[in-house]
Amino acid sequence: MLPSDVMKKAQHEMLDWQGSSMSVMEMSHRGVEYTSIAKQAEADLREVMAIPDNYAVLFLSSGASAQFSMIPMNLLRGKKKADYFNTGSWSRKAIAEAKRYCEVNIVSDSTDNNFTTIADKSTWQFSADAAYVHYTVNETIHGLEFDDIPDTGDIPLVADLSSTILSRPIDVSRFGLIYAGAQKNIGPAGLCIVIVRRDLLGDTLAGTPTLCDYKVQDESGSMHNTPATYSWYLSGLVFDWVKQLGGLTAMADINKRKADKLYAAIDASSFYNNPVDKRYRSWMNIPFTLTDNSLEADFLAQAKEHGLLTLKGHKEVGGIRASIYNAMPEKGVDALINFMATFEQKHG
Amino acid sequence: MLPSDVMKKAQHEMLDWQGSSMSVMEMSHRGVEYTSIAKQAEADLREVMAIPDNYAVLFLSSGASAQFSMIPMNLLRGKKKADYFNTGSWSRKAIAEAKRYCEVNIVSDSTDNNFTTIADKSTWQFSADAAYVHYTVNETIHGLEFDDIPDTGDIPLVADLSSTILSRPIDVSRFGLIYAGAQKNIGPAGLCIVIVRRDLLGDTLAGTPTLCDYKVQDESGSMHNTPATYSWYLSGLVFDWVKQLGGLTAMADINKRKADKLYAAIDASSFYNNPVDKRYRSWMNIPFTLTDNSLEADFLAQAKEHGLLTLKGHKEVGGIRASIYNAMPEKGVDALINFMATFEQKHG
Repeated sequence: MLPSDVMKKAQHEMLDWQGSSMSVMEMSHRGVEYTSIAKQAEADLREVMAIPDNYAVLFLSSGASAQFSMIPMNLLRGKKKADYFNTGSWSRKAIAEAKRYCEVNIVSDSTDNNFTTIADKSTWQFSADAAYVHYTVNETIHGLEFDDIPDTGDIPLVADLSSTILSRPIDVSRFGLIYAGAQKNIGPAGLCIVIVRRDLLGDTLAGTPTLCDYKVQDESGSMHNTPATYSWYLSGLVFDWVKQLGGLTAMADINKRKADKLYAAIDASSFYNNPVDKRYRSWMNIPFTLTDNSLEADFLAQAKEHGLLTLKGHKEVGGIRASIYNAMPEKGVDALINFMATFEQKHG
Repeated sequence: MLPSDVMKKAQHEMLDWQGSSMSVMEMSHRGVEYTSIAKQAEADLREVMAIPDNYAVLFLSSGASAQFSMIPMNLLRGKKKADYFNTGSWSRKAIAEAKRYCEVNIVSDSTDNNFTTIADKSTWQFSADAAYVHYTVNETIHGLEFDDIPDTGDIPLVADLSSTILSRPIDVSRFGLIYAGAQKNIGPAGLCIVIVRRDLLGDTLAGTPTLCDYKVQDESGSMHNTPATYSWYLSGLVFDWVKQLGGLTAMADINKRKADKLYAAIDASSFYNNPVDKRYRSWMNIPFTLTDNSLEADFLAQAKEHGLLTLKGHKEVGGIRASIYNAMPEKGVDALINFMATFEQKHG
């Protein structure tokens, strides 16, 4: 979902961007018009997230999954090992790809609890010789989210922030690298934002494609080749929308309220269930099941009739999943809660 | 430039695709709606280009430059050498990247003639042990274009078709692999079409990122990760537009007429000059200079006032460049020719 104000603005500007007689899609990425769009988007993101100056902000084609290989290629820097948390499907994919480039040590593994909780930090096993520590802040399929930033001392911390970026304030200075596929909380698919401390760059693995070298991308302003210009532009509209709403503190208030009320509705009912440890429940993705799971197909069909779309859980876990990213207005969550109550009255 | 009919349709459908209550940007790439869009786009491209069934058609994030590394990673297949033509800036970039993975033999080099012609095929030096032969069909910066498909026998021929794809019919069966960044003749930036013979796939270099493995992409229908969904959709609208116009034979007629009349105007005047050997002149990118090059800035400024945009030549060669891709209507070329005549009368 994208904010409806952003979509309307994009539609309005689609054939003629601000009197230029060109669509943004038709602009040369090196032209004065597009350069201003790209720079403004970066400036707005830096402002909204309070990104320190010693961090590069990259707008790269493809999504977060492309970073699963680019991170070891760029950040191993002569070391042979990296530490990964395994807290769900996205962690697992990141780990599988990293193993093609280095030894992977698992810091903590939630497989045995079906990714419903994260073990206490006293049990975490870091390696002294890890090049970096990677974690997935929020697992979108399982609805499992870290409640705090792991402390990794001098070892750079790398975070997949795809589904939580812009949802609340975060202290960027705690990270070596943050990456986020655009299609959750930012813009359309096919773009990934990478925020990386510049002192970590410049020592890639042999065979790293030039376009996968973060330093090359930083030095060219993410324009070593033609970037995903339209997605970058739309992302900029979203950054501006967040600013206008009051920034990340305001977004956090809205998002916490949305999540709290949906979890409260689920927990108040024995008809619906969410299996995740309350401490680690996601603000963004709320999976739940029906106690009588034979009713799920009915639930989804009737929800669709009420305009409540894309509620089917990921095929890996089944059930229902409400993804309530930034662009989902609070009244959308209210509508879902009302529908759930009505459905329960009818079938419960 | 994108066809104005396509842009209008995209604008019309932007907030609600065919009654789905969703923008294409908001659809899950695995949902039934998006799957139908993606499959239709591929089917239309296969029909328009008459792509044989033993070729995969991939819709990959990023542009043609990403293929500069992916091609050796996928097509070396145990060999240590590849053959490349050097006919301009894009060839040179492809060669530089390939050298990071293998030995590169230059089949023919146009450096000494400033990329204004291609040496006769009797002088071409192929290697017997090359894994593949690569050429850039049309050099967009120099306006230099092959007039025929090189015959490489059993060695797979690889073509960068970014700026000529869909501009005229081409016999796909002559190629091992064709790639084309979308932003010239297809759609918005951030997408690359790869058409590859399936028997060449499955033997990548060690360290190839999973997403860079063409076989993985083929087996997942280009959905191993979330693709650039909106760009793919827009490309589909362009494929349909080409079909409605009468396919590639009709496009070729239009494009040849556009190019012929612009070259005729340049050649008829001693005020304007195009340096390229007539046999190898591009249909798509027509660079020219003014005999009195002190008038170029004036030419560009006045052209802009007449709504003739993005005519500045690439910084590498300077001068003027008219890029007359599919989406440029014939009346746009007529307007340029009229403006050129008026400008010459005033300043000649």
